[in-house]
Amino acid sequence: MSDRTFHHTVRVPYADTDAMGVVYYANYLVYFEMARSELLREAGIPYGRLEAEGLFLPVIEAHCEYRRPARYEDLLEIRTRCTELRRARLRMDYEIFRGDERIAAGYTWHACVSPQGRARRPGAMLADLFKGEDT
Amino acid sequence: MSDRTFHHTVRVPYADTDAMGVVYYANYLVYFEMARSELLREAGIPYGRLEAEGLFLPVIEAHCEYRRPARYEDLLEIRTRCTELRRARLRMDYEIFRGDERIAAGYTWHACVSPQGRARRPGAMLADLFKGEDT
Amino acid sequence: MSDRTFHHTVRVPYADTDAMGVVYYANYLVYFEMARSELLREAGIPYGRLEAEGLFLPVIEAHCEYRRPARYEDLLEIRTRCTELRRARLRMDYEIFRGDERIAAGYTWHACVSPQGRARRPGAMLADLFKGEDT
Amino acid sequence: MSDRTFHHTVRVPYADTDAMGVVYYANYLVYFEMARSELLREAGIPYGRLEAEGLFLPVIEAHCEYRRPARYEDLLEIRTRCTELRRARLRMDYEIFRGDERIAAGYTWHACVSPQGRARRPGAMLADLFKGEDT
Repeated sequence: MSDRTFHHTVRVPYADTDAMGVVYYANYLVYFEMARSELLREAGIPYGRLEAEGLFLPVIEAHCEYRRPARYEDLLEIRTRCTELRRARLRMDYEIFRGDERIAAGYTWHACVSPQGRARRPGAMLADLFKGEDT
Repeated sequence: MSDRTFHHTVRVPYADTDAMGVVYYANYLVYFEMARSELLREAGIPYGRLEAEGLFLPVIEAHCEYRRPARYEDLLEIRTRCTELRRARLRMDYEIFRGDERIAAGYTWHACVSPQGRARRPGAMLADLFKGEDT
Repeated sequence: MSDRTFHHTVRVPYADTDAMGVVYYANYLVYFEMARSELLREAGIPYGRLEAEGLFLPVIEAHCEYRRPARYEDLLEIRTRCTELRRARLRMDYEIFRGDERIAAGYTWHACVSPQGRARRPGAMLADLFKGEDT
Repeated sequence: MSDRTFHHTVRVPYADTDAMGVVYYANYLVYFEMARSELLREAGIPYGRLEAEGLFLPVIEAHCEYRRPARYEDLLEIRTRCTELRRARLRMDYEIFRGDERIAAGYTWHACVSPQGRARRPGAMLADLFKGEDT
């Protein structure tokens, strides 16, 4: 749906590794969130502002596939796209790379809700996520 | 595949909440892991011993659906079953309850590998996970 | 100041370990918080209720000394006492044991503040923390 | 002892906040670690290489004072210096700023040990940390 892919890099801290010597699996969802926040910030609609304007985007579904282990000090690139925007839901897709190697891939589904938790249409607020960069 | 469901309870610490006032989404994967570890421990095959015997079970896929928010001090029950055991893979399914309310549900797929990362059959080591409790 | 020591046990999840194979140092502060929350709950004044009544206890200082590494699946006991209660501050002390071995020890200082962040005296609300069990 | 102060910036992710709406206190120790890793990397002795050469620097003491809350999306600057180097110990000091505001300050003490956990002198390996930038 969107041509617009955002790139965000993360340096793996020791905190994120586990006794297997690799990044603990739950931390990829944190990297997804960092990339998602960065995407919104770069699109000119930082998530904090969305919340201030009464639009919350809680995660209702998350998925991740782990291809190769990431390790301490790795420089990971997370590529993020908003791939679907429905009435009161949206989907983000993520791919994590270390150089040319694909480490992991996944997606999140978000509800669009008011502070009271009622479904609301994001409307124009999120439109920028779907504008292709060269159009 | 297995009749055997394990129950594990977690009290939500402040650490696991976020600025929305609810449990941050990645932490559910930590609850899954705690429940999974407990399942193996109760089945008499603690994960640490599996590793010592050369069987690692890295997560290769994780999925979670979030139904209702969990909050600080909630007492959550995680119900876990090993639902598939293939050559060198296994799947665990999880449901998280607060009282009668279903908070979240998900699954993880694990590879069965040697310390060098080669696929290996878990064989008898994991057989206990699939014995129904009354059979 | 208080004779009353509370005991709380934590089973170390894989999530809390790092590539050195031991519990990552920041996680001890999470164990402190779990023990502190449990202390308040057992004393009949769960922290959630304190917040609801307008008393927040943000950490203003934290300290930890690490004696021996803790590892995955270790069963740790955290012993907690409220050791000082001043006008609008209190101090908690913690010791972490694995069996008879002392793993770590530390303390936290907390401000007593209103929801607006103004200093307030906890007064009778926290008095129970300082009653010795047999007095 | 050292004139050399390193600067590292961190953007606060949602993951690091708690139900009080601010960065959870244990996460400052993670920021300290990120800054410490960056310091070693910039000094040309990345921690991963130190470990590969048989020098581990486990934390034996950590301390943090919290002055002002940090929040989601804040851009924090961590200023780090190696302030003491003894036989088989070293100390790092940290200050965290948001713009001109000092958010937090603290230190960590590290043992210098072999992979077997025996004390060893870091010797020339860490000497670069103590060279002032203009000397």
